[in-house]
Amino acid sequence: MHKVIYDTDPGVDDAMALLFLHRHPEIDLIGITTVFGNASIETTTRNALFLKQEWDIAAPVAKGASVTIDPSRHERPWPTMVHGENGLGDMPVPDVIDLPLDPRPAYRFIIETVRANPGEVTLVAVGRMTNLALALKEDPEIAKLVKDVVIMGGNFYVPGNVSPVAEANIHGDPEAADIVLTAPWKVVVIGLDVTSITTMSRSYLAEMAAKGDKAVKQLNTLSQSYIDFYKHAVEDGMMVHDSCASVYVVAPELFETITGAVRVVCGGIADGLTVIKQDSRRFPPGDWDGLPSQVVATGIESEKVLSLIRDTLLRV
Amino acid sequence: MHKVIYDTDPGVDDAMALLFLHRHPEIDLIGITTVFGNASIETTTRNALFLKQEWDIAAPVAKGASVTIDPSRHERPWPTMVHGENGLGDMPVPDVIDLPLDPRPAYRFIIETVRANPGEVTLVAVGRMTNLALALKEDPEIAKLVKDVVIMGGNFYVPGNVSPVAEANIHGDPEAADIVLTAPWKVVVIGLDVTSITTMSRSYLAEMAAKGDKAVKQLNTLSQSYIDFYKHAVEDGMMVHDSCASVYVVAPELFETITGAVRVVCGGIADGLTVIKQDSRRFPPGDWDGLPSQVVATGIESEKVLSLIRDTLLRV
Repeated sequence: MHKVIYDTDPGVDDAMALLFLHRHPEIDLIGITTVFGNASIETTTRNALFLKQEWDIAAPVAKGASVTIDPSRHERPWPTMVHGENGLGDMPVPDVIDLPLDPRPAYRFIIETVRANPGEVTLVAVGRMTNLALALKEDPEIAKLVKDVVIMGGNFYVPGNVSPVAEANIHGDPEAADIVLTAPWKVVVIGLDVTSITTMSRSYLAEMAAKGDKAVKQLNTLSQSYIDFYKHAVEDGMMVHDSCASVYVVAPELFETITGAVRVVCGGIADGLTVIKQDSRRFPPGDWDGLPSQVVATGIESEKVLSLIRDTLLRV
Repeated sequence: MHKVIYDTDPGVDDAMALLFLHRHPEIDLIGITTVFGNASIETTTRNALFLKQEWDIAAPVAKGASVTIDPSRHERPWPTMVHGENGLGDMPVPDVIDLPLDPRPAYRFIIETVRANPGEVTLVAVGRMTNLALALKEDPEIAKLVKDVVIMGGNFYVPGNVSPVAEANIHGDPEAADIVLTAPWKVVVIGLDVTSITTMSRSYLAEMAAKGDKAVKQLNTLSQSYIDFYKHAVEDGMMVHDSCASVYVVAPELFETITGAVRVVCGGIADGLTVIKQDSRRFPPGDWDGLPSQVVATGIESEKVLSLIRDTLLRV
């Protein structure tokens, strides 16, 4: 069993990944931590509580960061054209969910849960890396106590999605991402190189909804405007970014990976760019030297990933 | 006929590209301008004069820049492990060549030659972009008078070769490259995406030398240590970087290209990175807006390029 803390900003594709983590038989979802990004922290936290309630998820929800780790960074408007005004594709969601939050901020929840389960916790982080960076700053020793970290973020040999160079989760807090990627723990980076070619068609999702229970039907409903948004890039379907990271936890064999030190460009026109120095390549002395080797996904068996998502979501 | 000014820092692969330009029947090589890079400006200029003398090239040689356009940039040692101590793979070259230089500095030679041949000159630039940037700064109107610019430089969807992010020619003078790539002229960028997969084996070159004249035999001699250097990346062969740019002038159909605004990152860990915002992609307002659309090679028919090089070099 993989004990997973899911760090998320629901978020349409976040919701699908959450249901995957909740339903996969080899995953024990032991916590949900929220972060700002696809919407404000109030909205993403409300959405996490809503999905917990609707889908009967036992894991506690801890509220996380509301701003970048460097608070002087200028915030941009929420991506409402992607995830809707309410972060869940504008499906009806109550303003207030009558469920308690974990009393701790997300980074404290992460620290204490990791320390209570040394060597056992996988962090699956699919939003900005702010909570993870705050946890590392507060308690650097957790890097040695986490089993591994799987993030959705970055782009290596493909263009970005919020700028020609950068992917949204990394671009949203580059300093935090650089802290996370250069820390002495194992990070698996599931970025646009693989997620942008892993698309679920509207009809595939509709067939899942027809066979599935209320949760799957809700996923279908909340994904419709997200699929509409993606029409510039996908033929009537959606990139299932966050689910790819969740799938990696149980099926790493569906990914091709390379290894190397990873840095994030902070500032300037390449703000938020992720760069790997592959272990197999030699360069003159530079900014990637002496850093831990991370794992970056460069290939994916998309059809098998989609099948695994479908089969998992249709388990009840 | 293509009237070409060849801006170069010979350099082993520069020498092959020079012979290609000299021998191709549809190219009229009207000038050679030198730049620092593969060696000091004294060495690259001496080498250009040497090859002009040895190969009976009519075009004048004008000496160019010896430092980056921003002189505060720190210079690194010359890449002697790639091009030898003398820039030509340490084949014997006299210290002094008894041929006159054009009296003008390279950037003035470029300006005056372009103005004397409006709409007709193709600049093939295979070193650092310093001379071209100096010409643009001195006389911005030449951008409208040049036919087009073909450069060897940059990397888009592949790693760099002097850092995890950057290619040598761009990294050697990023500010100059950004000036050249954002000027209102048509630049075709032949970078590592295509040149790093276009490799000529030692035996292929040896067979050319066996059939060819003195010039081809000299190319074979001066390339041997360069091929030795490439053993970490190429199976007993060499990347023919600069020849790819020369080939594009006469055979653009051998390349796949994309179009978009191109910027160069100046400073920070991504110093010298080239980034394209493809015309087909939409992003929020940013640093690529309003710039001219350039042409970036992303695919190449390597075998046909090598054949064209061979056939052209073996013409006498």
